[in-house]
Amino acid sequence: MFRRTFQVRSQREGDIISIMGPVEEIVRESRVREGLVHLFVHHSTAALTTIEYEPGVLNDLKRALSVIAPDGSDYAHNTRWGDGNGRSHVKAAVVGPDLTVPVEGGRPACGTWQQIVLLELDVNAGRERTVTCTVVGDEA
Amino acid sequence: MFRRTFQVRSQREGDIISIMGPVEEIVRESRVREGLVHLFVHHSTAALTTIEYEPGVLNDLKRALSVIAPDGSDYAHNTRWGDGNGRSHVKAAVVGPDLTVPVEGGRPACGTWQQIVLLELDVNAGRERTVTCTVVGDEA
Amino acid sequence: MFRRTFQVRSQREGDIISIMGPVEEIVRESRVREGLVHLFVHHSTAALTTIEYEPGVLNDLKRALSVIAPDGSDYAHNTRWGDGNGRSHVKAAVVGPDLTVPVEGGRPACGTWQQIVLLELDVNAGRERTVTCTVVGDEA
Repeated sequence: MFRRTFQVRSQREGDIISIMGPVEEIVRESRVREGLVHLFVHHSTAALTTIEYEPGVLNDLKRALSVIAPDGSDYAHNTRWGDGNGRSHVKAAVVGPDLTVPVEGGRPACGTWQQIVLLELDVNAGRERTVTCTVVGDEA
Repeated sequence: MFRRTFQVRSQREGDIISIMGPVEEIVRESRVREGLVHLFVHHSTAALTTIEYEPGVLNDLKRALSVIAPDGSDYAHNTRWGDGNGRSHVKAAVVGPDLTVPVEGGRPACGTWQQIVLLELDVNAGRERTVTCTVVGDEA
Repeated sequence: MFRRTFQVRSQREGDIISIMGPVEEIVRESRVREGLVHLFVHHSTAALTTIEYEPGVLNDLKRALSVIAPDGSDYAHNTRWGDGNGRSHVKAAVVGPDLTVPVEGGRPACGTWQQIVLLELDVNAGRERTVTCTVVGDEA
């Protein structure tokens, strides 16, 4: 088992940030050829998934998450804590904090248009997000 | 590999129940220091995710899931089976039955406000839910 | 670690296809008795989850995903690429491409009514989808 933690810096709510670069590098460093790479974001207002990394579809995803948790709704969380993050927690819980991808030939084996992304869902901009990356499997 | 199964008792539809206690205990019992803990709920009307365990946000999540699968809609499943569980199956399939969290220092390494939860989505109250917890990794 | 890749052929957008058959066969072939089976679909317009495999509830899930990403919305992805797949990418990112299920007694240990399914979300019918299935654990 090989493990590294890395940071992702977001600018604003709704940022969808490709983390293919750091994940590919950690898998390379692990020397695992065939195995699995597990990712986990240690925050309740961020999430991980895969998507085609194209500006249009990233905007479409943002809008879709706002259908589930609209900006203008009354959130019990906001009333209680006054931090405006009700919608952020809800979107993060639905998408989820974890992702496991096969490692094939020493690389995370996503499809051609499929990228691993971190969703910044917090209303407060400019956050540092911690992701733990764990690689298991057989070396070359 | 270390495996334990545990039960979670729900009271009513929409219950969001923290399972951090049993998961922490199983990880401790496994003696794994650095690894992964995998969780799976063996039911099609329950789901697993992470969220801040705060009453306001738990209510916000319930309401958001009702946007995807409203109480008052006509469900083909209900028409066919008459069990009223159409919305329950839909919410469970979207959130998903599995979750994998890193084990760091002998504990499931969630963020400060991030708790592992079971969502009871069945319309029939008071169910016993079975969760399988599998821990893999290196002992101290 | 035991790994096989298999193909799933879909007919049309919205198809929900049980992949219990191939997964059970690969787990059997792996000879793993107690462990985990990980599944990953290598496409950005398909997804994996579990659901009761009953025609009514499959229709209910399709309709629920259309609440998040309605057919008639304007998608930035469509404007840019003209492929009509904006809604497909969004649904796939929310449901997710991966699933991990316990192996117990040499079988994927789903609940009684719980089936592993592939969601075909692409607007273009009749696609061949690639799923990688990885089995880890202890042999008998």
